[in-house]
Amino acid sequence: MKVQLVENVLKANDEVASLNRRLLKEAGIFALDIIGAPGCGKTAMIEAATQLLQPELRVGIIVGDLATQRDADRMAKWCDQVIQINTGKGCHLEAHHVHQALGHMDLTKIDVLFIENVGNLICPVGFDLGQDVKIGMFSVSGGDDKAAKHPFIVCEAALILLGKTDLLQYVPFDMQLFRDDVKHLNPNVNIIGISATTGQGLDKWVHWIKARRSLRSSRAEAAQA
Amino acid sequence: MKVQLVENVLKANDEVASLNRRLLKEAGIFALDIIGAPGCGKTAMIEAATQLLQPELRVGIIVGDLATQRDADRMAKWCDQVIQINTGKGCHLEAHHVHQALGHMDLTKIDVLFIENVGNLICPVGFDLGQDVKIGMFSVSGGDDKAAKHPFIVCEAALILLGKTDLLQYVPFDMQLFRDDVKHLNPNVNIIGISATTGQGLDKWVHWIKARRSLRSSRAEAAQA
Repeated sequence: MKVQLVENVLKANDEVASLNRRLLKEAGIFALDIIGAPGCGKTAMIEAATQLLQPELRVGIIVGDLATQRDADRMAKWCDQVIQINTGKGCHLEAHHVHQALGHMDLTKIDVLFIENVGNLICPVGFDLGQDVKIGMFSVSGGDDKAAKHPFIVCEAALILLGKTDLLQYVPFDMQLFRDDVKHLNPNVNIIGISATTGQGLDKWVHWIKARRSLRSSRAEAAQA
Repeated sequence: MKVQLVENVLKANDEVASLNRRLLKEAGIFALDIIGAPGCGKTAMIEAATQLLQPELRVGIIVGDLATQRDADRMAKWCDQVIQINTGKGCHLEAHHVHQALGHMDLTKIDVLFIENVGNLICPVGFDLGQDVKIGMFSVSGGDDKAAKHPFIVCEAALILLGKTDLLQYVPFDMQLFRDDVKHLNPNVNIIGISATTGQGLDKWVHWIKARRSLRSSRAEAAQA
């Protein structure tokens, strides 16, 4: 009965995720589901990337936390399409959360949508939200063993972000070990090191977003032609 | 049906947790369930505390991760009663994991048992393992907003550890905000700042463990008298 129930929950989630995907595609929005531990720097990264993407590309942000409005308040400085979701005791976002949030946003004003998932490297991985890509985020201060300990997000991610590179000089972090662990789990995924404090790597990250967005748009055009 | 199922899972867990609690009590073991985000420094803290507690008090360690044996390998340097649990996709330890682990340990050789839960500030909070106390662990590098965003662990914790205080000079962290958030959620809980790198605060933390352990022992004696 338990397995059946889990399957039903996931099936219901997948149906809403498909709906979200269609909505986002029709609006020409490129959506990224950002998955990382609490404190790996997701919010600061989104704030920095938003400033670099705009005004060329207009950004929307959905941010999930158990409690507080703090992240949305921070992000509202940089863009006016921000929705905070409080999950209560919920350890991850589900497609219906995103669907509700999309209903409160002006999709005609968004080119790139960041979905900052609840800080958790495990539970969010299994839930499709309708995003184009999942991004797995780690941090230098979180330690070099965290990729190996969280294989599912590494395997699912279209890109790995390694945040807080400005702290590399102050903490023990074996970059080769981290890279080897990622490569072992997902040979095709790239790693971009970034620091929202110094700005290091943000140009590469923003370039990646633009390139993947263009790729999707050109595929959609080819499909229509 | 979903609510019923969750209740059944928790009820089954509580029964095994009670069994664990009885086993631990009979063996005179003081057990701490350490709950914190991936990368907040749980493993380094346990390594450091183990060295300070021994040989006066003998330490046992149960450590949960989705994958790898790395933490147990690290900890095996400091004590010989170490069990690694790999949960696969499981986002938290349950009482039956601990029960199995206890079956593989020599309980006559343990005075203090650290149970390092899977790195996750949300899901482990709801599952009783049979521990004496739950410890909520945060880190300076994880940001000053994490207590407010994770109210359930703050409310349940007998003590809050704030790790990686050696990084205070390199990252933005508003200590007053963090303290106020904790106090607002749980007025009775203390915060001990520690650094496994510099050793700062470890004496206080080890003193807290010894004091709480003595308190429990004297209560048990009083109950028997």
